[in-house]
Amino acid sequence: MHTAAYDAMKGQGFSDAHASAIARTVTIAERDECRHHGLFRLSFYANGVRTGMASKDAQPELSQIAPSVLRVDAKYTFSNLSIALGIEPLAKLAKEQGIAALSINNALSVVALWPEVEQLAEQGLVAFSFVAAAPYVAPAGGTQPLFGTNPMAFAWPRAGHPPLAFDQASSEMARGEIQLRLRDGSQLPEGTAIGPDGQPTRDPATALAGAQLPFGGAKGSNIALMIELLTGPLLGDLLSFEAGERDTANTGAPCGGQLIIAMDPARFSPTGDPTAHLAHGEKLFERILQQDGTRLPSDRRYQARKRTAVEGVRVPLSLHKTLQFLRQGKSPDHLEAWEGDQSLRNPTTVLSSANDL
Amino acid sequence: MHTAAYDAMKGQGFSDAHASAIARTVTIAERDECRHHGLFRLSFYANGVRTGMASKDAQPELSQIAPSVLRVDAKYTFSNLSIALGIEPLAKLAKEQGIAALSINNALSVVALWPEVEQLAEQGLVAFSFVAAAPYVAPAGGTQPLFGTNPMAFAWPRAGHPPLAFDQASSEMARGEIQLRLRDGSQLPEGTAIGPDGQPTRDPATALAGAQLPFGGAKGSNIALMIELLTGPLLGDLLSFEAGERDTANTGAPCGGQLIIAMDPARFSPTGDPTAHLAHGEKLFERILQQDGTRLPSDRRYQARKRTAVEGVRVPLSLHKTLQFLRQGKSPDHLEAWEGDQSLRNPTTVLSSANDL
Repeated sequence: MHTAAYDAMKGQGFSDAHASAIARTVTIAERDECRHHGLFRLSFYANGVRTGMASKDAQPELSQIAPSVLRVDAKYTFSNLSIALGIEPLAKLAKEQGIAALSINNALSVVALWPEVEQLAEQGLVAFSFVAAAPYVAPAGGTQPLFGTNPMAFAWPRAGHPPLAFDQASSEMARGEIQLRLRDGSQLPEGTAIGPDGQPTRDPATALAGAQLPFGGAKGSNIALMIELLTGPLLGDLLSFEAGERDTANTGAPCGGQLIIAMDPARFSPTGDPTAHLAHGEKLFERILQQDGTRLPSDRRYQARKRTAVEGVRVPLSLHKTLQFLRQGKSPDHLEAWEGDQSLRNPTTVLSSANDL
Repeated sequence: MHTAAYDAMKGQGFSDAHASAIARTVTIAERDECRHHGLFRLSFYANGVRTGMASKDAQPELSQIAPSVLRVDAKYTFSNLSIALGIEPLAKLAKEQGIAALSINNALSVVALWPEVEQLAEQGLVAFSFVAAAPYVAPAGGTQPLFGTNPMAFAWPRAGHPPLAFDQASSEMARGEIQLRLRDGSQLPEGTAIGPDGQPTRDPATALAGAQLPFGGAKGSNIALMIELLTGPLLGDLLSFEAGERDTANTGAPCGGQLIIAMDPARFSPTGDPTAHLAHGEKLFERILQQDGTRLPSDRRYQARKRTAVEGVRVPLSLHKTLQFLRQGKSPDHLEAWEGDQSLRNPTTVLSSANDL
């Protein structure tokens, strides 16, 4: 799968380094059955460079801008390579300093955040990641879209288990889920969105023309606001509404900053030995799982990972066809002409093992 | 007011340093009309030492445990003095390193979190603060209390304005608000709590016997879980359920860790000049306030601060009487015998200006 994704990106003119970083990201997402961040996203990357919104080959630059702060200037490329470039130096710095931050600037972001926090936690670190997005969400009390769907991710290292990690939008519902319901002709739950008139709506089209709502009312709105400030003004980068203004080609790939923070439990420990700290976390997880109806945030992802390691990943025929077009240097729009009565969502092709990272 | 609070705490045997730090905290809260963290709380401090749960005079110890990490061992005192001791060294370290953390350990916490993040932001820093609490909140999907109401605070520095700051519990409703509704005989909103049988309830007594719910469903539950891990296992301190087990006297003053993180926008800037970063934040605030029905998270607090600077703080007669008992070294329980038909909530006494910090 990595090869198929890599070839598709090379066909669109991406440099080896960018094609490889993008292929790794989408392969990880497919492996974990997080399909809306998987192969499906390759069209977004292609559109980003085809419209001139993104550079396909600029080399991101890593620098240390303070004793505990690293920066990668992505130079208007997609964020995948910049994250790959910065994440190991961040881990090293966090282990030295106790806490460290990585600022990624001028990056187009269409990725999930859990892969990088999971990668940090696999090395025993606690990690946050924040990114803003295009302006889709109204602030609490307001009626106009202003905040991005602004996700945050957090990961905690576990001894003998893969890390606990969550990655959640500040909006009540993911934008892609609303788009899916528009296509399926189904209604939205209450509290998801308002229309252009500022009134609550359950109609997906009205919601997309209006504004999404933050999760959890004013508290979720505060989280969205915090993420705007952390990834825009703190890092000297764009706010969501500015990213929306920049994306004149409407690629859905907003440009801006990303903040990743890593902390080393060993350096927070008077003994320097993180063993007891990690064992202590397990006590909490046991107590959670003792209650019927609970699960840990990453459980579904790890179950998917086990499943795809055995069964491979099934890819819809139309998506398989898109990959061919992309590899041939064609626009992803070719699919519409080809598609005819093919179902976009019918998984008919086993492309490959998901474990060929 | 500071003097009245200080005298009350001295009357209960607190050392000068602790009495002064506690008086400062409750005076700040009264000044901002955050009454449930104000003079009303002095009884909690008194009960903490009267029951032997808290030390009244141990001197907290500050140490640097990693290049970017400070630690204060509160030695089972209330957290007020430890925060006061650590906050300026944290600000200094964040300015040097770009990002720095303060771990407060073995502290009994009954304070709000916004004063310390506001204090950091007044110096131009961006700040987070996290603390866990007693086990009151069920994890998403579960039915038994496990997480604390686990607040987090965040502050952003503003040029020409006091900082933007929010301080919010991970529970849908503050515990004190449920207790207030119990006393008033009013019902809870939907989605606030479940009873001991795991079923949704709007009855405050059933809710207090059962479990509170996190705000925003699974996403708020993830925030509560994150705060448990950040303040317990990361810092080598107690989880909420362990703090509940330790509080055998049921003082409502849980013991544990607190994590404060500060970042310096000047050190995240390629130019080293934070002016443009702060001006950029103002653009976002303008856009928020252009929408009818919105406000910035700290607005009510700053309005209250202006009001109390002119009008002083009105204190209920019963609370004024409690302060007298505390100053005389008596238990706050004396109030019950005295109270008779006095209303606990009727503000009849202007105690003093709130601005005598």
